[in-house]
Amino acid sequence: MTNTAVTQLLKTLDAESVVTDARAMAPYLTEQRGRFGGHPVAAVIRPDTPEAVARAVTACHGAGLAVIPQGGNTGLCGGAAARPDEQAIILSLERLDRIRSVDAEDFSLVAEAGCRLSAVQAAAAAVDRLFPLSYAAEADCQIGGNLATNAGGMNVLRYGNARDLTLGVEVVLADGRIWHGLKRLRKDNSGFDLKDLFIGAEGSLGIITAASLKLFPAIRQRATAIVGLDSVERAIALFSQLRQASGDALSSCELMGRRPLEYALAHDAHCVDPLPAPHAWYLLVEASSSAEDVDLAGRLEQAMAAAAVGDYRIAGDAPTAAAFWRLRNTIPAAQKVAGASIKNDISVPISGMGEFIQRAGEAVIAACPGTRICAFGHLGDGNIHFNLTRPEASDDDEFLARWADLTAVVHDEAVRLGGSFAAEHGIGQLKPAEVQRLKDPVELALMRNLKAALDPADTLNPGKVVPLRDQSA
Amino acid sequence: MTNTAVTQLLKTLDAESVVTDARAMAPYLTEQRGRFGGHPVAAVIRPDTPEAVARAVTACHGAGLAVIPQGGNTGLCGGAAARPDEQAIILSLERLDRIRSVDAEDFSLVAEAGCRLSAVQAAAAAVDRLFPLSYAAEADCQIGGNLATNAGGMNVLRYGNARDLTLGVEVVLADGRIWHGLKRLRKDNSGFDLKDLFIGAEGSLGIITAASLKLFPAIRQRATAIVGLDSVERAIALFSQLRQASGDALSSCELMGRRPLEYALAHDAHCVDPLPAPHAWYLLVEASSSAEDVDLAGRLEQAMAAAAVGDYRIAGDAPTAAAFWRLRNTIPAAQKVAGASIKNDISVPISGMGEFIQRAGEAVIAACPGTRICAFGHLGDGNIHFNLTRPEASDDDEFLARWADLTAVVHDEAVRLGGSFAAEHGIGQLKPAEVQRLKDPVELALMRNLKAALDPADTLNPGKVVPLRDQSA
Repeated sequence: MTNTAVTQLLKTLDAESVVTDARAMAPYLTEQRGRFGGHPVAAVIRPDTPEAVARAVTACHGAGLAVIPQGGNTGLCGGAAARPDEQAIILSLERLDRIRSVDAEDFSLVAEAGCRLSAVQAAAAAVDRLFPLSYAAEADCQIGGNLATNAGGMNVLRYGNARDLTLGVEVVLADGRIWHGLKRLRKDNSGFDLKDLFIGAEGSLGIITAASLKLFPAIRQRATAIVGLDSVERAIALFSQLRQASGDALSSCELMGRRPLEYALAHDAHCVDPLPAPHAWYLLVEASSSAEDVDLAGRLEQAMAAAAVGDYRIAGDAPTAAAFWRLRNTIPAAQKVAGASIKNDISVPISGMGEFIQRAGEAVIAACPGTRICAFGHLGDGNIHFNLTRPEASDDDEFLARWADLTAVVHDEAVRLGGSFAAEHGIGQLKPAEVQRLKDPVELALMRNLKAALDPADTLNPGKVVPLRDQSA
Repeated sequence: MTNTAVTQLLKTLDAESVVTDARAMAPYLTEQRGRFGGHPVAAVIRPDTPEAVARAVTACHGAGLAVIPQGGNTGLCGGAAARPDEQAIILSLERLDRIRSVDAEDFSLVAEAGCRLSAVQAAAAAVDRLFPLSYAAEADCQIGGNLATNAGGMNVLRYGNARDLTLGVEVVLADGRIWHGLKRLRKDNSGFDLKDLFIGAEGSLGIITAASLKLFPAIRQRATAIVGLDSVERAIALFSQLRQASGDALSSCELMGRRPLEYALAHDAHCVDPLPAPHAWYLLVEASSSAEDVDLAGRLEQAMAAAAVGDYRIAGDAPTAAAFWRLRNTIPAAQKVAGASIKNDISVPISGMGEFIQRAGEAVIAACPGTRICAFGHLGDGNIHFNLTRPEASDDDEFLARWADLTAVVHDEAVRLGGSFAAEHGIGQLKPAEVQRLKDPVELALMRNLKAALDPADTLNPGKVVPLRDQSA
């Protein structure tokens, strides 16, 4: 990249859209966990209209300059960070932050990419509707990033991933053209499905600048329960029974092993062991309804009785429900205290979860004796965060040096069971090598074909997801 | 196409897979409504494994012979029929008719493309699960065709289109490679979303040979109601209220004008006017639940009272509910008796349905005075079958000669309101010209780009959806 190219690019933008001061650029360069990023870029730009994004991308495309789109910078895989020695600009969508329209009767709204997820939720709530996407980073992450990574979270069981919540997208293509695909239709078979190509592609096929999103009736009541179980198989069977008996009203079905629960209890004095005796596994379930008058707690109670569950508690009030959720939500922070962790974001068919946990656990222990398995996640989605905490006797750096080989052990077991090594967190810079190693060659060829067709000059987030060119340089 | 090429192709298949006798080929050549097809093809082939499909496609690809995939041949747009003067073979998937696996605890099954939709429903029911895709042709249509056309139907409001019900697909690509994409995962962000490219592409990007499909808890009870209303706006408001009050348990929300209702009453002596006085519009709603004990009818009753609806009936038993549905289901046959119809398969944002019906109706009457608007459809999906019955004074042929200009009038109004001219029936041979005329040029270019990337030799269903080459020859 030449200075001339950057100068040309920056000329397409107003002063407020350009950040070149090193200190001001710093927050855009560093990923929150510090695992990726910190590498310099030519500039950070913050255009505030799709047209300005398009002008900037056109200039970068012409100059052979890479564009790294960035939302709230909360991703866990380095998808929004520069790679070492990369000639790139970071394109922050943060100033594209308008809710363009809200239509309660259509159960939809249109939001620009830079809207924080919590702002989208609030815009829906203001018209007595629900936008169900929800997860820990919701106050910081942006809807554009949610779509680019096809975010999952706590309500996927009932409402699906970000992809399932999207009716249309506006996208700046690699050559700077804008695709105005913001339809708000539940049915449209007038051509190929283009929007889903851009959703989940981490900005490598196009830059999402706005989206039309599905809304749902507002939730009027919830019922929450926690159950102790002696096996994952029993948890899977109970999930089926509760799903049926609740009238398919389960919005969350979270599985936690005893170890992560103990980490939470040790870490946070407000966390209380929820049941009289310890159990190998816990299921945290929540049912919810937009109806005022349905007795959800009673229905869960009945279902537990019918399923002959031994040890469970139904939250009789909101604080008790919050206490159950606190256990689940404390785990990510609590496991840090126990020592370094190697994270695995795995999905398998729901019915295969027990076998996966068993086999992957054995394989990890064989490869690294003493590793403490810290498994928790979204059983209803077949998604488990199969995290590995270092052996007590080991130290953090020694254990983290084994990231590649221990994740490979876990990924191999997942793939063997028809699962995925990247369930909800994506690929970014963390897993392109695993994409190369584990994907069906035909699928990999299709992905490269699409990247080459939509971004032949490799302008958009090069090296992420599926590198078009050899990135070893 | 040379005889040699066909001979080579047929050599790849066993005798049972090849149909070349003219009489035996006939049923594969003619579309059910007789609007498309009847044109000769070199052969009909019926391979019974994905590998045999792949060998045949490889041979056709090598010989420059077009492949027209065909499911149950129930489509309404000629997508599975040959075009005039086309050098092609028809590839029927009917012998790929195995349910490969059913997994109740995973809420999924894997079916080959040639399984009839009713067989997929039955396989789910056998393990106390629901496969919710449902529409009139379900005993004849095949799941591969359902996916290729992204079929909609009666339960889209609650469960989505065919696309939303699909976890993975197995696809034979244009060059004969097989993509084994039959994952059964609720979350998989390990690469680009490939499956949705093939779903809804009408076999023009790849041939779906099997699919893994989502199942849901079996339905234990339903409640059905019919409501008379004086405006579409009132129907839209009521839809919101019922959706909220039912706990989002509505599975159908069908709108019917008085005219199509009267056609049904005139045509079928078992159809009974459902309410004491006539109304301009009727809403047929059904709520359903997998729970045994919830009082759905009572909840609908309460919601109607709260919404201050004047004239409605809740079905107190299954025969009454069936009588309500009979009205809706009789309309397509009944309108034929009133004279020839020009069919429009329109979607708009739900909130825009009243404006669409008003404006499109006025525009049609202005263009062809006396045309009888026969509007009915899936209000909850924003999908209306805005059919035009010929003026009483006109004759069928004279009216049908105006197909192109009157559909254009309707399509223009739909597109003006952010709608679609092909909501659930697809493009096929019926609407490629409208695709060219009405699509955003950037979207059209993207579609051509994808077709060229995935099927550069134009082997797969050429001339359908988005013609890669000039088809005027």
